[in-house]
Amino acid sequence: MKQKKTKDSEKTVKFYSIKDEIRILGIDDGPFDLHAGGQALLVGVIYRGGKFLDGVLRTEVAVDGTDSTEKVAEMVCKSKYKDIRIIMIDGLGFAGFNLVDIEELFERTGLPVIAVVRDMPDFAAIDEALENTAHKEFYLSCIKKAGRPKKVVNRDKKHIYIQYRGITFSDAEKIVKLSSTRSLIPEPIRVAHLIASGIVLGESRGGA
Amino acid sequence: MKQKKTKDSEKTVKFYSIKDEIRILGIDDGPFDLHAGGQALLVGVIYRGGKFLDGVLRTEVAVDGTDSTEKVAEMVCKSKYKDIRIIMIDGLGFAGFNLVDIEELFERTGLPVIAVVRDMPDFAAIDEALENTAHKEFYLSCIKKAGRPKKVVNRDKKHIYIQYRGITFSDAEKIVKLSSTRSLIPEPIRVAHLIASGIVLGESRGGA
Repeated sequence: MKQKKTKDSEKTVKFYSIKDEIRILGIDDGPFDLHAGGQALLVGVIYRGGKFLDGVLRTEVAVDGTDSTEKVAEMVCKSKYKDIRIIMIDGLGFAGFNLVDIEELFERTGLPVIAVVRDMPDFAAIDEALENTAHKEFYLSCIKKAGRPKKVVNRDKKHIYIQYRGITFSDAEKIVKLSSTRSLIPEPIRVAHLIASGIVLGESRGGA
Repeated sequence: MKQKKTKDSEKTVKFYSIKDEIRILGIDDGPFDLHAGGQALLVGVIYRGGKFLDGVLRTEVAVDGTDSTEKVAEMVCKSKYKDIRIIMIDGLGFAGFNLVDIEELFERTGLPVIAVVRDMPDFAAIDEALENTAHKEFYLSCIKKAGRPKKVVNRDKKHIYIQYRGITFSDAEKIVKLSSTRSLIPEPIRVAHLIASGIVLGESRGGA
C-alpha cells in the first residue's frame, strides 16, 4: 500500500504562536464487543495543552463501520466549546476498522487533525486484515490520505508516530511535545483513554 | 435538625505527611431524571493531588435511594487502585437524596471522607424536603453523622464548606487547599463533574 507523502505546502492552518494552554480535543474509543456488531463509545476531552481538563464530549460510532469522520465532525461542530484549536485521535480510527478520513475531518471542522500511534503501523498486516472488511476501498483511501506516519521524539529520547492534516509537521510536532506532560502519549489522548475505558468497564485500564 | 460536632479527637487516619501528589478519589454524579425513578451514573476519578488524572471508576446508584454508601464502598474496595488515600464527594449525596453515611463509608473503606459544598446547606429547607422522602430517618442520620459544615478559605480569600470523617480538620483543610489548583472546587471533584455530565449529556456543563 502506498501512502501519500504529506507536503507541508498543502492547505494548513497557520499557527502564529502556539500557547502552552492551547485547547486540544483528544479522542479515544472505549472497549467494545467486536462480534456484537454494535456501537462503541467515543470520548472527547478538551484539554488545555498538557495541563488540565476543560470539558468532556461523548458520541458513539459503529463497530467496523464508516461513520467516525461524520460523528466526530458533528460532535465538534455542535459543541459549545468554540475555542478548540486542534483534534488529536488515538490511532487512525475507532471501534475496530472505523477509520477516520482526516482530510475530510479537517475540511468539515476547519481544525487540523493529528493521529497519534505508539508504533509504526504494520501496513502489510493491515492490508491483509482489510481483505475481510466490508469497506475496504474506503479504509484504503483513509490510510492513503493520512500520509506516511512520521516520528516525533517526545520524552527521554523515545518517540511516537503521527499522521496529520491541516497543519505543518513542525507545528504538529510542537503541539504533541507540549501536551505530552505525563507520558509519551499526549495528555488529551491519555485522559480520553482512561475515561472511555473506565466508563465502559467500571474501571480504567492501561495507558492510552 | 442538630448536627453532631466533629471532634478531631475521634478516630482518624494519621497523615504523617501530605504529599502534593496524594491520590484522591473524587466522586460526582451525572444528571438524571428525577421522575423516572431510575439509576444515576457515579463517576470516580483518581487524581494526583490537584495535578493529573490516574484513573477512572464508574458505578450507579438509585435516584432517591439509600445505596450510595454501599455502592461507593464496593467501587473502592474492588478497585485495582490500591493507593487511594482519601475520598472526596460532591455534597453529602448523589442522585437526589441518596445521601452517603460518611462515617460508615470511612469504616468500610478505611479511607477518610470529605464532602465538599460550595455554600452552607439550608438545613431548614432540607428538613422540609425530607418530609416527602421515603427514607427520612436514614437521611437525617447521615446529615447528623456528617457534622456541621466547616469553612475552608481556599483561593482568593473565597471559601467553601466541608464535612468530613476519619481525618482531622487541619489535614482535611490541607488536602482541599492543595487539590484546588484550578478553581474553588478541588480538581478531583471538578473533573468528576465534567466527566459525569459529559458522558450523560454528550457535552459537559458548568463547573462542579
